[in-house]
Amino acid sequence: MAILHQMQISGNCYKVRLAAHQLGIPLTLKEYPVFAGDTRRPEFLSKNPNGRVPLLELDGGRCLPESGAILWHLSEGTALQPQDAWTRAQMLSWMFFEQYSHEPYIAVARFWLSEAPNEELEKKRHLVPEWHAKGNAALAVMETHLKVHDWFAGNRYSIADIALYGYTHCAEEGGFALSDFPAVTSWLNRVAAQPQHIPLEFAW
Amino acid sequence: MAILHQMQISGNCYKVRLAAHQLGIPLTLKEYPVFAGDTRRPEFLSKNPNGRVPLLELDGGRCLPESGAILWHLSEGTALQPQDAWTRAQMLSWMFFEQYSHEPYIAVARFWLSEAPNEELEKKRHLVPEWHAKGNAALAVMETHLKVHDWFAGNRYSIADIALYGYTHCAEEGGFALSDFPAVTSWLNRVAAQPQHIPLEFAW
Repeated sequence: MAILHQMQISGNCYKVRLAAHQLGIPLTLKEYPVFAGDTRRPEFLSKNPNGRVPLLELDGGRCLPESGAILWHLSEGTALQPQDAWTRAQMLSWMFFEQYSHEPYIAVARFWLSEAPNEELEKKRHLVPEWHAKGNAALAVMETHLKVHDWFAGNRYSIADIALYGYTHCAEEGGFALSDFPAVTSWLNRVAAQPQHIPLEFAW
Repeated sequence: MAILHQMQISGNCYKVRLAAHQLGIPLTLKEYPVFAGDTRRPEFLSKNPNGRVPLLELDGGRCLPESGAILWHLSEGTALQPQDAWTRAQMLSWMFFEQYSHEPYIAVARFWLSEAPNEELEKKRHLVPEWHAKGNAALAVMETHLKVHDWFAGNRYSIADIALYGYTHCAEEGGFALSDFPAVTSWLNRVAAQPQHIPLEFAW
């Protein structure tokens, strides 16, 4: 069985668990404590020199880092990816948007404001206004799209929705007001109503 | 003919020009001045609500943002993508790595240290040590891989190499010392020796 090296609290790891659960792919979860630094030690670095989770380890020890690439690999050829090339490109575009323009502000604000010890937050406090400005800009881009589309790529739920759901659904933990984004809020409800949906807390 | 909305100086736009040139895909280049703010005005935002280049506009007005997704779309089914699913997933993994762990430090350092007006750089000067630390960490991850592989995905040149070449080849403009990374330097030379290679400055 494939091993997911992960932190339960990480939205990037949640995306992989959610897609795998909906696809019926069993995973063994190997948990890393958030502040222990184990992903920066030689044993882990031999699997991912970038020292980050999630990391998918397949039978035989082949390793794949990066949540977007793991989502892609688990779902290739399934209903979680569009069939046609143009829609698939749009799906990837939203996944790159999420990692570049969304996650570095929305996930990072959640981590420091909700998860990190207070004394660590104080060192980062001056960055909060920038995280909120850029994170709200990303939510506004999503709102513009979702005012006229039910889903991010094509007319159906795909791994682009899973990628964006990962940190959007818990954005309020980072101080974002989702009530300012009604189309995003409706889409969050549509995602949570998909068959075999699991919440971030769910482990197996 | 497809239109590439772009800034010539941007490594993200260069990636698209390089792949298109090597694939023999003609593009009309529409240039945006770097500091004019045109990509944040309504006409452009109607094409990409995220206000960024590169943006590929196909016949009929269909638009695709995000350099990684554009690279994917232009090269799907060509020799610039591996045939097998596992290698393709590794290719995407390196492309997500580039946008998350590499570009935000290496491209950003180049922009502020080489392109931005001095008075603007002074406002960012305190960030330079962090850009250099995290950019050097990304170069070290590349070095680890390239010590034992000629290319990033599988055993051949792919859009993962193009994605990583875009800002690595000009990293010294951001204050990075490529001589510290001999395997990266050799790989840069291999990329530049590929058929139909063009430098960043080349426009058509």
